[in-house]
This record gives sequence, C-alpha cells and structure tokens, in this order.
Amino acid sequence: MGQNSQESDGEWRRCVCPGSYDPVTNGHLDIIGRAAQLFDEVVVAVLHNPAKRGTFEVEERLDFLRVALGDQLASGQVRVQAFAGRLLVDVCREVGAVAVVKGLRGTGDLGYELPMALMNRHLTGVETVFLAADPALEHVSSSLVKEVAAYGGDVTGLVPDLVLRRLLELRNRSQGSQGSHGSQGSQEEG
Amino acid sequence: MGQNSQESDGEWRRCVCPGSYDPVTNGHLDIIGRAAQLFDEVVVAVLHNPAKRGTFEVEERLDFLRVALGDQLASGQVRVQAFAGRLLVDVCREVGAVAVVKGLRGTGDLGYELPMALMNRHLTGVETVFLAADPALEHVSSSLVKEVAAYGGDVTGLVPDLVLRRLLELRNRSQGSQGSHGSQGSQEEG
Amino acid sequence: MGQNSQESDGEWRRCVCPGSYDPVTNGHLDIIGRAAQLFDEVVVAVLHNPAKRGTFEVEERLDFLRVALGDQLASGQVRVQAFAGRLLVDVCREVGAVAVVKGLRGTGDLGYELPMALMNRHLTGVETVFLAADPALEHVSSSLVKEVAAYGGDVTGLVPDLVLRRLLELRNRSQGSQGSHGSQGSQEEG
Amino acid sequence: MGQNSQESDGEWRRCVCPGSYDPVTNGHLDIIGRAAQLFDEVVVAVLHNPAKRGTFEVEERLDFLRVALGDQLASGQVRVQAFAGRLLVDVCREVGAVAVVKGLRGTGDLGYELPMALMNRHLTGVETVFLAADPALEHVSSSLVKEVAAYGGDVTGLVPDLVLRRLLELRNRSQGSQGSHGSQGSQEEG
Amino acid sequence: MGQNSQESDGEWRRCVCPGSYDPVTNGHLDIIGRAAQLFDEVVVAVLHNPAKRGTFEVEERLDFLRVALGDQLASGQVRVQAFAGRLLVDVCREVGAVAVVKGLRGTGDLGYELPMALMNRHLTGVETVFLAADPALEHVSSSLVKEVAAYGGDVTGLVPDLVLRRLLELRNRSQGSQGSHGSQGSQEEG
Amino acid sequence: MGQNSQESDGEWRRCVCPGSYDPVTNGHLDIIGRAAQLFDEVVVAVLHNPAKRGTFEVEERLDFLRVALGDQLASGQVRVQAFAGRLLVDVCREVGAVAVVKGLRGTGDLGYELPMALMNRHLTGVETVFLAADPALEHVSSSLVKEVAAYGGDVTGLVPDLVLRRLLELRNRSQGSQGSHGSQGSQEEG
Repeated sequence: MGQNSQESDGEWRRCVCPGSYDPVTNGHLDIIGRAAQLFDEVVVAVLHNPAKRGTFEVEERLDFLRVALGDQLASGQVRVQAFAGRLLVDVCREVGAVAVVKGLRGTGDLGYELPMALMNRHLTGVETVFLAADPALEHVSSSLVKEVAAYGGDVTGLVPDLVLRRLLELRNRSQGSQGSHGSQGSQEEG
Repeated sequence: MGQNSQESDGEWRRCVCPGSYDPVTNGHLDIIGRAAQLFDEVVVAVLHNPAKRGTFEVEERLDFLRVALGDQLASGQVRVQAFAGRLLVDVCREVGAVAVVKGLRGTGDLGYELPMALMNRHLTGVETVFLAADPALEHVSSSLVKEVAAYGGDVTGLVPDLVLRRLLELRNRSQGSQGSHGSQGSQEEG
Repeated sequence: MGQNSQESDGEWRRCVCPGSYDPVTNGHLDIIGRAAQLFDEVVVAVLHNPAKRGTFEVEERLDFLRVALGDQLASGQVRVQAFAGRLLVDVCREVGAVAVVKGLRGTGDLGYELPMALMNRHLTGVETVFLAADPALEHVSSSLVKEVAAYGGDVTGLVPDLVLRRLLELRNRSQGSQGSHGSQGSQEEG
Repeated sequence: MGQNSQESDGEWRRCVCPGSYDPVTNGHLDIIGRAAQLFDEVVVAVLHNPAKRGTFEVEERLDFLRVALGDQLASGQVRVQAFAGRLLVDVCREVGAVAVVKGLRGTGDLGYELPMALMNRHLTGVETVFLAADPALEHVSSSLVKEVAAYGGDVTGLVPDLVLRRLLELRNRSQGSQGSHGSQGSQEEG
Repeated sequence: MGQNSQESDGEWRRCVCPGSYDPVTNGHLDIIGRAAQLFDEVVVAVLHNPAKRGTFEVEERLDFLRVALGDQLASGQVRVQAFAGRLLVDVCREVGAVAVVKGLRGTGDLGYELPMALMNRHLTGVETVFLAADPALEHVSSSLVKEVAAYGGDVTGLVPDLVLRRLLELRNRSQGSQGSHGSQGSQEEG
Repeated sequence: MGQNSQESDGEWRRCVCPGSYDPVTNGHLDIIGRAAQLFDEVVVAVLHNPAKRGTFEVEERLDFLRVALGDQLASGQVRVQAFAGRLLVDVCREVGAVAVVKGLRGTGDLGYELPMALMNRHLTGVETVFLAADPALEHVSSSLVKEVAAYGGDVTGLVPDLVLRRLLELRNRSQGSQGSHGSQGSQEEG
C-alpha cells in the first residue's frame, strides 16, 4: 500500500501463545504462525506443573517446538520457553507481552476460554486475542491425537514429523506392556 | 408408497452404535432402535479399555444389552460385540460399517462429538450420523443414572429392568460399605 | 470384507435433502454426495413459497442442481424435484423417504435445526439425520456466497461453475442499477 | 413438612410471563402453570406494538389465554393483560412484579434471552427467572406451530383446542387465497 | 405500588442453593442474595461426599458461609446446612423446598445444568430456577479462584475476606512443600 | 521490562473495527480502545448500504464516532471512515489492514462471526481477531439500546452522551407520531 510507505516504525509488541504442548500439533503451529503476523515476537510458553507428569517430558516438548519452529526461531519472530507452576498473567508480565493468543476450534472452546480470558484481564489487564482455528485442523488437539496414535491410528499431517515418530515409538513400547498409556475415554463414551 | 413397489432391493448397509454402555440406558436403546430403521444391521459396539475398570464388567454390560435387545437380536437387525483397546474407525472397518450412529442430547453433545466425527472421517472416511435424542430421555446418561441410583434415587423408566435391579443391588451393597462407589460430582457442584 | 459377501440385498431406502437451493453451493453438493453413500436414493427437494421471490427462479435453481449433479442423476442415485408451499414431512411422505439429511456447520446450526427435527418426528415419525459439514466448506452458505458475490468477491470453489457465472452476471447487471440486490447485512453489523 | 407448620405467611410476590402470545401454545401454558407454583400471582402480559400486525388481533390472543387459563384465572393465581408499546421493565413496575419468568428450550434460547435479562436488570433491577422447558414441548413455538398449521400439518396437542380450531380456519381461508399467509422460511432453508 | 397494599400474605416458599462451596465465592453470594428476594427462605446446602476430600473441610466451608452471610442468617432469610452423600432432590424434600436456584455464567453452564434440572424434575417434580450470573462475576468459580490463588494471583474482590485470608495461608504453606495442592489444569491447556 | 529497552521499533500494523455503528455504543468504544493497544492504528469503518436506510444518517454516525473518539483521533491512533456497498475484505485491502477486530459478547456472537471470519480469510487471507466484550457491557448492542430508548428506557452509561441526547430527541419526536420508529421485536417475544 502506498499509504504505508511513510509508516516504517510501529510500536514493538510481544504476545504469548501458552499451552502444555504435550505434544505440539499442526493446529498449534498454525496459530503460532498467524500470531507472528500480528505481533513482533511470539513467546511460545510451555506451562507445566512439576507435580504432574505429562505424556512427554518438558524438555522433549521444547525440542519438538524448536525443531518445528526452526526458521521462525532463527528469524527472531518466535521464542520457546518453559514455565513451571506459574500463572499465565505472570508469564505475560515477565516476558513483557501485551496479549495472549488462543485458537478457537468452535463455540465450545470459547465457553471454556472466556472465563479465563476475563479472569486474566481482571488480574493484570492483559488482553486475550482469539483466532478462528483453521477448519482443516479443527479436529486436532493434543489429547485426541495422542489417543488416536496410542490405538494405532495414523496421525500423519496432524503433527510435525518428529512428534509423529515419537508417538509411534510410544505406541510400539506400550503394546508390549499391554496398553498402559493413553486414555480411551472419548472412544468409549456413548 | 406405490412407487416403492418395484424397489425391492437396496444396497446392504451396516452401522455401528459405539459406547461404553456401562450400563445401557433407555436413551441408548432408543437410538439403537432408530438406527435399525435406517440401516440393515446395527452393530452395538461395547468399547472398553482393559486397563480401566468400569462400574460393570464388560460381560455384564453385554448381557444387559442382549436381554434388552432380545427381539432385535433374534431378527438379525442388531448384533452386540465387545472391542478392547480399539479405535472406533478400526471397529468400523472390521465389521464393514459405512457409518457410526450417535444420539445428540442438545448442542453441548455436538461440541464434544464434532471433533471426533471429523477425526474419524479424516482417518478412514467413515461417516458419523447424528440423531436428535428423544426429548423425553434427554436427561438420561449412564453416568447421571448411576449417580442418581447410587444415592437411592428411582431410575425406573430410564434403564431396562435388568439394569434397574443390578443398580439397586450395587446401591444396597455399597450402603453397607459406606458409599464407596459412585461420584457425587454433579450433585455437589455450585 | 469377506463377511459382507453374502449380504447382497438390503432394504431399499430413500432420503430427502431439502433446501431452497437459491443457489446450490459446494457445501450442499458435499452433503448430497455423502447422503448418496448412506441411502439408495437421494431426493434433492427444492422447497419454495410461490408468494415469495428468491434470488433465482425455481426453474433456474433446478437447472443448477441438474448440471452439478449430472453423473449422479444419470446413475439414478439422485433425483431433483421442486415442491411449492409444502411441509417437509409431506414431501417425505409423498416420495416415500425414511429420513431427511441435513449438514451441520457447527453447533449454531443445530440450535436452529433441532426444533424442526423434533417437530417433524412428532408429525409423522420421519427421522432427521445430521452430518458434520466438511470443515473446508464450513463458511459456505447460499446467503453468504450471494452477499460476497454481489459486492464483487470471488466465490470460485464455493459454488458450481454455472452458479459462479450467473452470480457474476447478476453482479454486473446490478452494478448498473446501483447495488439494488443483495443485502449487506452481515458485512455491516458491529 | 412438620417444620413448615408454623410458617403460614410468606411475602406476597408477583411475576410476569411476557410474550406476544400470537397465539398461546401448550409450551406457554406449561411455563405459566409452573410460574404459578413459584409466585403468588402470575401476570400474563401480552406485549404488542400497535404499529405492527400479528397473525391474531390482540383481543383474540387475550381470549385464547382466558379460555385456556380459565381455572387459574378464577382462582386468582393468574391474570391476563395487554400492553401496547411498553418496555417489559415498565410493565413489571406497573403491576408490581419482582420477576420475569421465561422458559428455555435449550442453550440457543439463552443466547437470545441473556442480553435482555441483563439489560432489564440494569434498567430497574427486575430479576429474570429461567425455567427449563418441558422436553416434550421443546419444539413448540408460536412461529413453528403457525407455519406447520399453515401448510396443513396437524398441531393437535401443541396448542389449546380453541387455538387449534382458529388455525384450521385460517388455513382453510388462506387456501382459497393461494397460501398468502404464513412464512415458509424454516421449511425452505438448506 | 398501591395495588399491593392489601396483599399482605403470600404463600411461604423455601428454595435451596446447592453447591460444594469449596470455598464460597462472591458469585455464590450474589445468587444467594438474589434468591432471598424471590423466596421467603434460602437453604444454602453444602453437599459433600464423605469419601472425597475437598480443598477445605466441610466445617470450614460452613464457617465461611456463616461469616459471609451473617446479617441474612440473623434475619432468618438464609440458613446454612451440610448434607453428606445425598441427592439434591432428597435435600429439597427434607427441607421442604419448592425450588433449586442456580446461577448461569453463560450458555456453557446451561448445557451442564439442563440435564440435571430435567432429571430432578423427573424424580420429584422439584423446579430449578436459573438466574443470570452478575456479568462482573462471570469469571468467578471456586475452582478458578483456587487455581489463581494457589499460584499467587490476587483474588481480592472475588471471594469474602475470610476466604481470601485462608487461601493466602494455603498458598504460603504449599510453597514450602513445593506446590503440592492446586491443579494447574486450565493454565496449562493449549 | 528491561528486556524491552532495545526493542524500540516494531512493524507498523493497522486494523479495522467494522460496523454499521447505527449508533456507536460504549461497547464499541471499549473494543476500539482495546484494539488501539494491540495495533498502531485502528480504522473505524462505518459500512453501509446506500439502498437501505438506518436509524441515523451515515454522516451523523460518523459525527457520533468523531466526538466520542476525539482524543484518539487527535493522537492519530484511530481514524473514522465510511464505506458504501463494499466487502469488508476490500475495505481492509484498501486501507492496508492486517486484521479485523471484533468483540464477542458470548458464544452466540461467535456462531454468527465464525463463518464470516473464515470466509474473509478464504477471500484475502485477512485475519479476524476476537476480543471478549467487557462483561459490564455484554448486554449492549445498537439494536437493543435503540429499542429500549424508543420505549422511554434510560440508556445512560450505555452510549456516549451525544448519542443519548439524539436518542431522546428521536423518542420525543416519535411519541408525537405514535410510536412509528423502533421495532419492539425482542420485547414482544415469548
């Protein structure tokens, strides 16, 4: 746009894309990439509770993200960082973020996210910005992907390659030990 | 319809009504019966995770279903089968089903079912068919029925007779042992 | 599946895909095609009210459908028919359909469709079968497509080619007459 | 309850059940009857805009209500009254009501009713009380009943007898004049 | 209202405001206070399961309520009582309540509450009355408040003072023992 | 934040807050103000259809906005502009905006906004950013405010002062002419 030519410098703004990223999915990567178009830096914040074990160790979750976000990390648009036992608003304050960015996979997600967004705004005034999830990835969540993979379903195209390989390893290992990981919750419900 | 007279033969189509059926309710039976009007055979698939215990053993869940579905089993319209640690899409492939049939008890159910339907379609192309639950049974779910029964509420008319008797037995037994089964979760919330 | 080999003949079943189809979109075509996998014949019922004018004449809506559904019409899987001032349940009774098939583009659609499905089941027992809309076409409705096209937006890939051409013609004609057709309602709201 | 014996007198409280009642349905009557269990008097307020014509004249709507609510009117539990061009909060103030009572036919209704309830509470502090609609009447609204009746559908059991007769008369009359009343909107949508 | 002058005595009606109140929030107090305008007595029923431990002991939850509701308890408008392992409908029967009062913090809450309201009405006919939560407290739930407080967030204004002090004590104690209480669930999700 | 000191210059980004603003409410102003924290310039785009008359002329709507946004206009953070008969995506392209900003007043709003956001992203890739409406203004929409004002309700605090005065004038004028403007739609519904 010609009218933008003189507008070289805007205010520098950082946002946070929070999650447990256990593991990162292509749905997460879509939102992180779009957040990077709207803000000057995206802090991908891996929030975890030291007292609770996830499917993957925090270090491995960070590795997944670093590999998948390689180019964006190199260009300085994105940063990956783990936070233990911290409120999201404190994470935002610490890294100097003006907003949290979240993807919405339909109206159900909003019912869950709205009270947290209001609480966070009440606590420190930090804004939560919602983006509509890519419809092609609407069914992709860490928990559904893990469940499908644990029962031998093919999740190619839903997670980065490295995650795909590790989910396959987990699957093979647990088959020996009789399906001990992975809940079959959603497959069982009637 | 006169125009149907010459149309004696259609394609043979099978569907799956999946669930944990722990235990079967009259809401389930309503959906199974309606599915049998739309498809040539209904496979009632009792999905379970060997590593997790339910309220009733899988064998007993199958018994409940067989007794309640007696006539439809005899006529060959319906079949009851258990599947351990299996993806729903693999169950559909194994039994040769073109569709999964699910009841919707309102818009909340859909928010939960939609990602799974999309995931299943993504995995193997299997279709999920949603039917509106009978409004008179809209409040009937296995978990709510169990909770009510565990605290002595009367669930006559909400589950088949055999299930009703067994829920009463469980209730009487657990009263001796101080209310150890049944969560009061939903009754407690504020 | 080997177990299907002996199952050559099922019951013959017909369904109705109702709508105003003013005009048909690729979202409609997706649902019609999927309905044809589940039923032996799909009657695409163009419901209209003689007292109300649509964007396209009923004859032209039927033409759009016939061209877009050419192969399926030829194979006898699909039939296209107009009905003036008729209840959907009477249409189903007349053509001998056991079910209505509807696409759901999210939970909002269900809130609107559920009372009608319950009413129709109350009136004649006809079943309504809901299918999850293809996420890639989730944003596609006749009204939104018409609005976008009326203001010069490119709706390639959202409607069949013939519809695309006719929408362009309408657009060019109305530009001469100062934007007289098409509501800008949804673009205007704040 | 023995503990209630000494509690003969409570505070006298009146509520308002507002609507256009064009015409009253059995769903309305269910809510009015239940409101009468919770409050000492129910004012059934027929709100209308003199500048807009409904399907039935206001006087006829009042007649429908008076006939259907005969016993409750006689006992003084219920009162029927028309209000032209008035805010609901002003109606409440005028009749001395502490609350508005509304039926909810699912979560969709709430999305529509919540802003009005909040607005009314903001304006005068009047409370809005929501009751869950009887599931057996969940699909019953004045507009859907009128549409079904206009196209010859049988709405017996969904509206009081007098309304049923008048809807039939309207239907017969409009058939002569080529379906000029009644929108077929919801039957047409795709 | 002059027209109310002769209406000194209404029927005496009691309602129940059920919950785990673990702990009471200002959102609960808002609903209890509004229920007291609509009914002659409010029984604040602390429902708990002896087999499950909450964050606070039942006795302490009752204390929080008694202190916060001091004036209303003294005036006889409100009563606080604990019930162990009981169905809500049995609680209502025991105390002679005609209705349950619940706050709705949006349409999501309704999806959860509606089946229970219908079940309770099915069981004993007891009515559930829904009030729209105060928007200023829409984000306030016992679980979110506990989570925020556990991670050092300031919940002043969201809970009564006594609760605020006790949450601070819990926070200080658990910091010594390495974050052992409080789930970080909602802060972690992506 | 010390870590921000060297980050003086970010990319310059513009967003659009679209609407009919007929008239602007305090809910709009809240969203515009928050958008100005996230982007370097906000274009408040008054979209209108020359063929449809609103309550206020476009020039007057612009005046309302200019007066209410005085300081932000002066500082160059905000710009107000009218667009006739234009697609929102074309407006964004013309002014060089990377995003549309919309307020969400609950999950109902999202059901309406999501298809448009997906359509706009499909058309040109423009992003839609959703912010949670201030709960204290959740019930405030142009249409509800106009309806309340038209029937004499006090909307002080819901709209800017100038709008309040003009709504009063309209009210007084229309009282002379017998309630000819303003729909009473939502007040009438049952």
